[in-house]
Amino acid sequence: MNTQMYRVTPGGPVALSDWDPDEHSLFPDGKDSAKDFFDGQNKALEQLQELLYAEGKRRLLIVLQGLDAGGKDGTIRSVFDHVNPQGVKVASFKQPSTAEAAHDYLWRVHQRVPGDGEITIFNRSHYEDVLVVRVHDLVPKERWERRYEQINNFEQMLTEEGTTILKFFLHISREEQRQRLQERIDNPSKRWKFSHADLKERGFWESYQEAYTAMLNRTSTEWAPWYVIPANRNWYRNVLISQVVVRTLEGFNMSFPEPEEGIEGMIIPA
Amino acid sequence: MNTQMYRVTPGGPVALSDWDPDEHSLFPDGKDSAKDFFDGQNKALEQLQELLYAEGKRRLLIVLQGLDAGGKDGTIRSVFDHVNPQGVKVASFKQPSTAEAAHDYLWRVHQRVPGDGEITIFNRSHYEDVLVVRVHDLVPKERWERRYEQINNFEQMLTEEGTTILKFFLHISREEQRQRLQERIDNPSKRWKFSHADLKERGFWESYQEAYTAMLNRTSTEWAPWYVIPANRNWYRNVLISQVVVRTLEGFNMSFPEPEEGIEGMIIPA
Repeated sequence: MNTQMYRVTPGGPVALSDWDPDEHSLFPDGKDSAKDFFDGQNKALEQLQELLYAEGKRRLLIVLQGLDAGGKDGTIRSVFDHVNPQGVKVASFKQPSTAEAAHDYLWRVHQRVPGDGEITIFNRSHYEDVLVVRVHDLVPKERWERRYEQINNFEQMLTEEGTTILKFFLHISREEQRQRLQERIDNPSKRWKFSHADLKERGFWESYQEAYTAMLNRTSTEWAPWYVIPANRNWYRNVLISQVVVRTLEGFNMSFPEPEEGIEGMIIPA
Repeated sequence: MNTQMYRVTPGGPVALSDWDPDEHSLFPDGKDSAKDFFDGQNKALEQLQELLYAEGKRRLLIVLQGLDAGGKDGTIRSVFDHVNPQGVKVASFKQPSTAEAAHDYLWRVHQRVPGDGEITIFNRSHYEDVLVVRVHDLVPKERWERRYEQINNFEQMLTEEGTTILKFFLHISREEQRQRLQERIDNPSKRWKFSHADLKERGFWESYQEAYTAMLNRTSTEWAPWYVIPANRNWYRNVLISQVVVRTLEGFNMSFPEPEEGIEGMIIPA
């Protein structure tokens, strides 16, 4: 299964309209045709994560970005359902706290990057500092303009020091977002998830599309590429992300640590 | 199912020999007879954890202590297999780093306590500072003697500020530890988990039993009780811990948050 078509070529100009959020060409026959494959990926991910943790040498950072109702929480729930919580961390970046806002925007992010043997999933990330911050002019343009390069440099340092970075943009259509938000309103058990602020943010749809396009164009690098994931269909989104993560872990060619010298044949006394 | 028999009554003198690590009286017919119950508990835990996270008001701290091969990792893997990694964190406390050792022993622990809506599992904890530290005289006796009360005060503050604390001692027999360590040596795929230091630590068995007994006698409080979990049988250990956690979460009487005013009946524009 080749997911390279979803990888944003570094430097190459891209438009969001190049990707159809409804597209599911690797499984044209739909959800049922992907089920066995996805179950197999889930099992593979579980085993590879155990190996990553046991080996304790490599670090994997997964960045999830997307609009409201884009499916970030659902991705975490579905793709990382069976992993061992001991080696997988989720860092959610919301409105900065007073202490966080009193530092540079990478300060709080840097504290949450994975350590040896760990996978960390960023639910939103430092990219909000060139997304919501840009859309709402929360800092002057000359400040957010500089951040694209700052972010690239930060991520380059992380990868040079031993962290592998995968970045996924969950791409949904305007109509899909409408349906998902409406569903939250109509379903009494989901209504608490909806906020008036969500509707207000939806009013900035075009500005967000622009900001996401700039992000993809300026921060998809050789060391930390973006993947644009067609995300109108949850199952296809899950299959693609799972596949990229599994392939990446397989590429590490990991092995269990060597035992210490002189352990074979030892007898533990009673 | 009544797990109160495993709860250490605050103040009452206890001896570790009061508990048989092989005991499984709540499921006398063995593992198979507990399977359906455990599966049900697992599902309940999954749902309760989602509710805890959605409500975002309460904090649950779970402390796991036990000797080498006591089953701490296995507990995390089995009992918390299906929870959402977004709301469940694991904090493993190993040998302190230089920066950690340059602070009081509660400093690194305090940083990892759960926030609103979170469950945090401590794999080892501040109790090592009255266990390994006591057994090996890593600080003078007058210092570790004071720590029992310091720990009680710290945990009291946490609970008064809104954290619920559950503490589990995984109680295995000397013979069970022997078998488990021997299995690590004999099984080539597990051999990397064994260290010569493990055998050395086993030599301090009696000192550890004393240190654990003191811990149970002096730090099982009304606000943060210890449970002594018979842990020679993994399945029984899992059932008991799962049950205490589920009962505790049920006792929170949680509900999903109220939606904001004026959302019912809203229509999202296209």
